[in-house]
Formats: sequence, C-alpha cells, structure tokens
Amino acid sequence: MHNDSKHIASAFDRDLEAIQALIMKMGGLVEAAITDAAKALEERDVELAEKVHKGDKAIDKLEEEVNEEAARLIALRSPTASDLRTVLTVMKISTNLERCGDYAKNLAKRTGVLVNMTQIEGAATSIRRMAREVEEMLKLALDAYIQRDENLAEQVRYRDLDVDQMYNALFREFLTYMMEDPRNITACMHLHFIAKNIERMGDHATSIAEQVIYLTTGEMPEDARPKGDLTSQTEMGSEEL
Amino acid sequence: MHNDSKHIASAFDRDLEAIQALIMKMGGLVEAAITDAAKALEERDVELAEKVHKGDKAIDKLEEEVNEEAARLIALRSPTASDLRTVLTVMKISTNLERCGDYAKNLAKRTGVLVNMTQIEGAATSIRRMAREVEEMLKLALDAYIQRDENLAEQVRYRDLDVDQMYNALFREFLTYMMEDPRNITACMHLHFIAKNIERMGDHATSIAEQVIYLTTGEMPEDARPKGDLTSQTEMGSEEL
Repeated sequence: MHNDSKHIASAFDRDLEAIQALIMKMGGLVEAAITDAAKALEERDVELAEKVHKGDKAIDKLEEEVNEEAARLIALRSPTASDLRTVLTVMKISTNLERCGDYAKNLAKRTGVLVNMTQIEGAATSIRRMAREVEEMLKLALDAYIQRDENLAEQVRYRDLDVDQMYNALFREFLTYMMEDPRNITACMHLHFIAKNIERMGDHATSIAEQVIYLTTGEMPEDARPKGDLTSQTEMGSEEL
Repeated sequence: MHNDSKHIASAFDRDLEAIQALIMKMGGLVEAAITDAAKALEERDVELAEKVHKGDKAIDKLEEEVNEEAARLIALRSPTASDLRTVLTVMKISTNLERCGDYAKNLAKRTGVLVNMTQIEGAATSIRRMAREVEEMLKLALDAYIQRDENLAEQVRYRDLDVDQMYNALFREFLTYMMEDPRNITACMHLHFIAKNIERMGDHATSIAEQVIYLTTGEMPEDARPKGDLTSQTEMGSEEL
C-alpha cells in the first residue's frame, strides 16, 4: 500500500516533469521572441519582425499541448489537492507565457508599420532596454518556478517596479514629441502601445512570480503586487496608462 | 454499481451548477461595472467611477472562489475527461470575466483623471455605445455557455467585428483631434486607451464564446476568431492598435 502510493506519486512527478519541460520550451521561445522583436524594431529589420510574427504559432501550439497534457494528467492520476494546485499553476503559467508571445507578435507587427513613419530619436533604444529587462524577469520567474524559490520570485516582483518606471518615463517622452510636432503623433501612438505592451509582459512575469509564491507559501503575496502603490497615484495620469 | 456511478454523476452536476451560479454572479457584476464605468465617463460622474473602482474587489474575490471550488470539485469527484473539460472551461471563463472587470476598473480610474482635462466632443458618447455593445456580447456569451448554444456563440464572434470597427473609427477620430490641437493630446491618449480596453473586453467575450464552441463541438472554431482577417491588414496600422 505504501509502496503503491509511492509508485503513483512518482508517475505523477514524471508526467508533471514532462509538462514542465514544455513550459520551459515555451519560455525559451517567448524570451527569444521578445529579444528579436525589440531588435527588429531598433534596427528596422522587417524580416526579423516577420520571423517573430510567424513564430507565435509555435508558442500557441505549446500552450495547447500544456493544457491537454495537464488535463490528461489530472484525469489519469487524480492528483492530491497540493499536486492539483501545481498542475493548475502550470496551466496558468502557460497562459501568461502565451500572452507575452502575443505581445511580442504585436510588437513585431507594428515594426512593419513604423518603418514607414517619422523616426523618433532614441525611442527604439529605450524600448529595447525595457524589453531586455522584461525578458530577464520572465527568465527569473520561470527559474523561481522550477526551483520553487520564493526569494527569486520576490525579486521579480520588485524588478517590475523598474519596468513601470521605464514605461512612465517613455510615456512622458512621447507626449513631448507629439506636442512638439503633430507629424510625430501617429508614430508615437504606435511606440506608446509597444511600450505599454512590454510593461504588460512585465505584469505577466510578475503574475508567474506570484503564483510561485502561492505554491511555496500557500498564500498570495499580501497587497497583490507592490506596484499597486504606484498605480493608485492618479494625479498625473500616466501611471494609469 | 450503475446506481453508484449515477449518484456520482449527479453529485458532480450539483457541484458544477454551484460554480456556474458563481460565474453568473460574476457576469452580472462585470456587466454592471462596464455599464457604470461608461456612464461615469460620459456624465463625468467621479462618484460613480469610484464605486466601479471599489467594486472590482468583489469580482476578484468571486474569481478566487470559482478557482477554489473548481479545484475542490476536481479533487473530490475525479470527473471524466469530458466533465473535466467543462470544469477547466469554467475556470477560463472566470479569468476572462476577471480581466473584463480589471478593464472596467481601469476605465473608471481614468475617468477621475479625465474630468480635469479638455473635453473631447462626442468621444465619451461613442465610447459608451461601444461599451454597451461589449456588455451585450458578454451577456450573450454567458447565455451561450449556460445553454451550450453554439449558434449564440457564433453570433458573439461576429459581433466582435462591429466592436473592432467602432474602435478603428475612434482611433482615427482621436488622431484628428490630436493633430488639430496639441492641448487635446493627453486627453486623447487616455480616451484611446479606454477605447482599446473596451475592444479588449470584446476579445474576452469572444474568447468565452469560442470556449463554448469548443465545449459543444469538441473543436476550437477554425481560424480562431474571424477578426483575425481584419488585423492582418497592417497597411494603415490602426487595426493593429
């Protein structure tokens, strides 16, 4: 009986590991998509942007696979409450990653539009810096998940504050450019959306980190994410965007 | 034995119904939040906006409840593959609703900022019309789920095209206002984000409808959503935003 339950547990673990391998593969593709999309924007490389755009299908397919395998695992192994929580977390992480992939795809699409517009000095470089930060957050968040490392997860949450600050600075910069010259408006609207979408990727990395904290401590971090404090300062409005 | 499995099946159904009741409650709160947020914006009613903002907590709490109850149901009843699919769908629908609630909250927050800015003639009215459309789509999508009605779900998918068109028209309108007078820029940026967020709520309603189609037919609708066609026309760029 004891042996038997041990046997069942390790079958569950094996299946879970297979799903986690899919998640890590997904993570790798999403990180590459973010890097490439930001690079394509900065270097006005339409071909690379196209590659990112097309590559999103593979990410979507992995998400489906994760969902199917997770459902199969639940049906087959009837996991305990705590194992079930892990499986459901894995499914949520795959959703977070899929959304990040969508944002990278969107960034890539806009690059195709932006190459035909007035160039905004330095914006693409700032955006690339922001993208690099978010990509690192994602990597850390997935490491935190695999190692069930609460401290690493906390780091991700705090780094999200930097991303929010970068975004706020860019928002103000774009406002200035638009006011200076109406011909900058359309390009700035696109760049602003790109910045906003990267900031949202940071939120998804943070959400993964929070799920790791939930898994390891059994509780969601108090106050949800720390950036909650910032966004409630509405007087300037830009924090809200 | 046969009786026993019948007993288990109906226990599952009872539990599922309880969770569905939570979903419908959530749906009701989200629909009200959308309506109130759009009304607050049009009538510059900061108090109503504040009510929407505060009300989002109740929606978040319901989502948590749905997730907990669904996990409990899976652990307790070890549902069959098809029942399990239903439970996982319910969890996804609750995530879609929660995101819509977030967008309504965000709309309400921006209302507090916008009352202090240049008023953009007619924009709030157009936005309210768009919000009404999305709220109806959400209602239809939830009806489609409860009745497992594939045709109703298809309707939701097609109505999303209208919302996308409304959004595109607004986008162009805002560009014009910004180019006309730089003092409109900041307000238009906020209004544009609001329009975009309402368009995203439409995507979430569509996602619920697609899950209903998946539940009833066993397959995701081909081509994902019909609007896919529209968004790939990147020449003007606005469809991308």
